[in-house]
Amino acid sequence: MGDYKKKISLAVIKRLPRYHRYLGELLYNGIARISSKELSEKMNITPSQMRQDLNNFGCFGQQGYGYNVEYLYHEIGKILNLDVQHSLILIGVGNIGQALMNYISFEKRGFKFIAAFDANPKIVGMTVRGIKISDIDCLEQFLKQNDVDIAVLALPEEKSYEIANTIAKHNVKGIWNFSSADLVGIKNVMVENVHLTDSLMILSYKIGNQSTNKEFHY
Amino acid sequence: MGDYKKKISLAVIKRLPRYHRYLGELLYNGIARISSKELSEKMNITPSQMRQDLNNFGCFGQQGYGYNVEYLYHEIGKILNLDVQHSLILIGVGNIGQALMNYISFEKRGFKFIAAFDANPKIVGMTVRGIKISDIDCLEQFLKQNDVDIAVLALPEEKSYEIANTIAKHNVKGIWNFSSADLVGIKNVMVENVHLTDSLMILSYKIGNQSTNKEFHY
Repeated sequence: MGDYKKKISLAVIKRLPRYHRYLGELLYNGIARISSKELSEKMNITPSQMRQDLNNFGCFGQQGYGYNVEYLYHEIGKILNLDVQHSLILIGVGNIGQALMNYISFEKRGFKFIAAFDANPKIVGMTVRGIKISDIDCLEQFLKQNDVDIAVLALPEEKSYEIANTIAKHNVKGIWNFSSADLVGIKNVMVENVHLTDSLMILSYKIGNQSTNKEFHY
Repeated sequence: MGDYKKKISLAVIKRLPRYHRYLGELLYNGIARISSKELSEKMNITPSQMRQDLNNFGCFGQQGYGYNVEYLYHEIGKILNLDVQHSLILIGVGNIGQALMNYISFEKRGFKFIAAFDANPKIVGMTVRGIKISDIDCLEQFLKQNDVDIAVLALPEEKSYEIANTIAKHNVKGIWNFSSADLVGIKNVMVENVHLTDSLMILSYKIGNQSTNKEFHY
């Protein structure tokens, strides 16, 4: 599997968490192996699509046997870089930010908040899940002294570029961005955007075109 | 623009909220028109991609003039079905659910929560932004008596299929799903999934492959 890193398309990568989720569920239910037909039916994709996706990463399936659920689950986990712990900081401890800090399934997968920052004096000093919220003015100092893998941005759009640029200077590897800015052109850091309003608008479109776009439903 | 509904690909639809977001910002900043070159640079896409996307819906641009920002903003809004109000109910008033109820930018765009439901007796009876949380046992009764456009599901995976099937029986148009189930095979209702953990895993992948996958950054 040594050279897969260079050629995998983003479309394939985007489907991997879904494989991981389904395999995790099978594992949880004590299922040791599954045929590509069964797994693909469960996931509502074609068997050939699934085989193509997984072939990108090596030879997982075996003719007449199917997939070893536990092995495939762990291998996909490794590809997704889930076999290491990730340290997270939160910037912007509003409604969404607090909800993310309290989302225990992140921690179960090795994503652990180690600090949180806000500009609002009413929020600074509060404790959320054992973490005392720090003043945003302490962010740069904190980044100098600690290894941070991922900064979660849940703050207003107008602040997000400035904060993202500060983060990018300090060796943070990724930004998980919930602000409505796209953070175009921030160097040296990977950005993954979650635009909740965009997602709601897509649903709005689907609803408005319900009769003609049945293929949207999955 | 009468017959666009039949032929627009989901890939194009998924980009529309982003156009809407950028145009809204231009409008807010008092910019009346913009060339396709400028807008596409701002959005970090090619001018030809942008023209192709927008040509799906009619003739918006004018040679030598560019786009009329306000007109394009409103037309894309109409395509996204944002010119009508949508009534929302929330099912599962946990951390994420409460954060969504408190997210004021949804309401600004015409998405208004009218009720919320939970199974936890500690949460039932609480008030969030003026809405008293009802017992989940009252859901079906409520759906019989009220017009609900969108049900927001923010509840554990194991409950989500049962609730989704109940919703689908009662003329709700869409489900905005934050549970980790994909809700495959729910009939008569459009589903839009927001899988936060999947998004975090994709960021995790990008981080782990940072050196070889610069093209992921945008």
